[in-house]
Amino acid sequence: MTVPGDGDRGSERMTVPGDGDRGSEWQAGDTGSVQAGLRDLLDSLHPIGRHPETGGYRRFAWTPADRECRDWFRQQAGARDLAYQVDRNGNQWAWWGESQTGSVVTGSHLDSVPDGGPLDGPLGVVSAFVAIDLLRSRDVVPARSVAVVNFADEEGARFGVACAGSRLLTGALDPDRARSLTDVDGTTMAAAMRVAGHDPNGLGRDDDAIAAIGVYVELHVEQGRALADLAAPVGVGSAIWPHGRWRFDFPGRADHAGTTKLADRHDPMLPFATTVLAARDEATKRDILATVGRAQVEPNGTNAIPSRVTAWLDARGPDPADVEALVAAVAGRSTGDVIRESWTPPVEFDRMLRERIVTVLEQRTGRAPPVLPTGAGHDAGILAAEVPTAMLFVRNPTGVSHSPAEHAEPADCVAGVEALAAVLAELAGQ
Amino acid sequence: MTVPGDGDRGSERMTVPGDGDRGSEWQAGDTGSVQAGLRDLLDSLHPIGRHPETGGYRRFAWTPADRECRDWFRQQAGARDLAYQVDRNGNQWAWWGESQTGSVVTGSHLDSVPDGGPLDGPLGVVSAFVAIDLLRSRDVVPARSVAVVNFADEEGARFGVACAGSRLLTGALDPDRARSLTDVDGTTMAAAMRVAGHDPNGLGRDDDAIAAIGVYVELHVEQGRALADLAAPVGVGSAIWPHGRWRFDFPGRADHAGTTKLADRHDPMLPFATTVLAARDEATKRDILATVGRAQVEPNGTNAIPSRVTAWLDARGPDPADVEALVAAVAGRSTGDVIRESWTPPVEFDRMLRERIVTVLEQRTGRAPPVLPTGAGHDAGILAAEVPTAMLFVRNPTGVSHSPAEHAEPADCVAGVEALAAVLAELAGQ
Repeated sequence: MTVPGDGDRGSERMTVPGDGDRGSEWQAGDTGSVQAGLRDLLDSLHPIGRHPETGGYRRFAWTPADRECRDWFRQQAGARDLAYQVDRNGNQWAWWGESQTGSVVTGSHLDSVPDGGPLDGPLGVVSAFVAIDLLRSRDVVPARSVAVVNFADEEGARFGVACAGSRLLTGALDPDRARSLTDVDGTTMAAAMRVAGHDPNGLGRDDDAIAAIGVYVELHVEQGRALADLAAPVGVGSAIWPHGRWRFDFPGRADHAGTTKLADRHDPMLPFATTVLAARDEATKRDILATVGRAQVEPNGTNAIPSRVTAWLDARGPDPADVEALVAAVAGRSTGDVIRESWTPPVEFDRMLRERIVTVLEQRTGRAPPVLPTGAGHDAGILAAEVPTAMLFVRNPTGVSHSPAEHAEPADCVAGVEALAAVLAELAGQ
Repeated sequence: MTVPGDGDRGSERMTVPGDGDRGSEWQAGDTGSVQAGLRDLLDSLHPIGRHPETGGYRRFAWTPADRECRDWFRQQAGARDLAYQVDRNGNQWAWWGESQTGSVVTGSHLDSVPDGGPLDGPLGVVSAFVAIDLLRSRDVVPARSVAVVNFADEEGARFGVACAGSRLLTGALDPDRARSLTDVDGTTMAAAMRVAGHDPNGLGRDDDAIAAIGVYVELHVEQGRALADLAAPVGVGSAIWPHGRWRFDFPGRADHAGTTKLADRHDPMLPFATTVLAARDEATKRDILATVGRAQVEPNGTNAIPSRVTAWLDARGPDPADVEALVAAVAGRSTGDVIRESWTPPVEFDRMLRERIVTVLEQRTGRAPPVLPTGAGHDAGILAAEVPTAMLFVRNPTGVSHSPAEHAEPADCVAGVEALAAVLAELAGQ
């Protein structure tokens, strides 16, 4: 896993993509085929959609970069003689065994947030392929079919709805609404799908595809530092916190910054700034999360008092009542108009499935893995409404996520593959 | 001056561009040829670079919209048999009489801020042409030549340096620096000029052009409400306040908004918000102006803690020491890195010229016009370092500026033309 362009692709030394100066390097062959498999697959994905200056990924749904990722998935399926399918909602499937009701499904997504890291999404897909390679190398013949899935448009970076592929699959996202969602250039999701070669007329709940999923297990790099604090390479998900997005509109009046008296101004930057600080204050009070990470200023000229500021509040916590109280408190301290753009209720992953996974992992390593909730949304959270669902998290030593500096140690990625392989073997039977 | 697209261009009713609902309408012929001339010229400029949704103008230097404005200027010169020239720095000239040393020059600019109004810049150029028409209709034959000028790139909206055309002319802007300035797309000013048909190799101080300017008088719509408060249609400029722009860089660490504990965050949105409020507070204390009208958030994702926020502070006031103290105080209350991007010292317009103009206008109307400073920069402020310079302001009833709602009453625009014509006749002699 060398960084393309450093002239070192042919070398045996490799690093996990991320901060190239971190020095977390592997020697190829140190830990055998799992490591080599991870290296090769992450290496082959590495250049796709990577911004040359930021080093971050811009793999937005149904763009050329996303299509390259999807081509990569199809090639990986072909290279392993896994039957390749695309469902009506654009999710990609690779089948070890016949496509049949009640199969064991694993995977994640290949799209990214703006300037995302190399592992959020891809690690789950790559680990799924490598886990199958590992099981095959051990001559495991599963009784139930196993499938790898790449859910389309998980991040929602382009059209604003996260987990669009899994939401369409389960019917949680209306297909007419999905088709008419637009990106910043005004391109609809329907048009973008067509350009990428997918027919948007087939969107909508897919009972056959859902029936094929007997159980879904998603491996994902952790997006916080809980496992690092617990000194555990792999954890098991318990729940996804309820979370939502609220848009705050601050109308103002455009005026010349050099000539308009302070008393005559209607400057929306001021209530916006007040709201940013109120959001942090209310989150601190409740020990939950609130973030203003996105803002648009119009016309955004140095010598122009803005005519409008729009800001987005992201709020999450274990208890939905706390999150709602936070938003109400921030709105009460703000003069902005508040519109809820999305709300995802809490998700509790299937308890029996989770206990079975914990037992398998404890038997394998002699230590029960930590069980932890997450504040991040995942396709697993959407599927949890339909089928037994579980998540495995791989330690993130810095906790940095949605950033080019996102990182995991090679040994932890190997531990993740080995845990996933053990879980798949257990769930698929022999 | 009807709004194009309302199907009413052929009607005799007209309004000054701006808020079409204000009801400030003229009946053609009410006040004769000055009014008709203003209407026709503003009408013909009206559609150029106008955004169909905001109604604001986007006439950025060396763009197609700017080129349309420049074509318009050349046509107006031709229609009046005024000799047309473009100087080495891209400023346009229309000569009534020979181009000669010590001429009387008037004009302004045709470019705009993002979503600017119809009058900031154009009113000065349009009034100059109509004033010449008025003097000719009175058979005035000036002893000194009179020129109308359209200074290139006054607003600096595209390349970030205001008054680029006049700064280049006087040598206040280094031509190498100007050529290498870039817009948001990375296009250099040199490349943009070439695309627009102007050779950037000729940029730099132009002694011949400066020698031709015996005196410069710029008419401009007022950008505050001082004249409205004084019930005066026309005022005379005394000074331009010192003003500057400071960039505040707030580095942060990109992280997932849903998984990163508050204590683990390095969120640059918070010190940015604190700085916005500090700037207003420090400006209020000193009774001067400070504005944060522009901010960039990276990566600007709803569920991403920003990796960086960049903000620009605009500060102005009558006393440079107060402005500098304000910036120091804001910087002291901010964790951002502060870089001064521009600083314009105070400009005092030529006192003898101003007194001569006040006398002319008082003789004409029986009332001495108000003499007032402005916080806005103008080409007149740049030229004041080289030649006697003066400004006339036309009343702005709301004070709104740098906005599609910028507005002036037709009768005040007529008064502006009559004042300018009287001043030109006085300065040019007969």
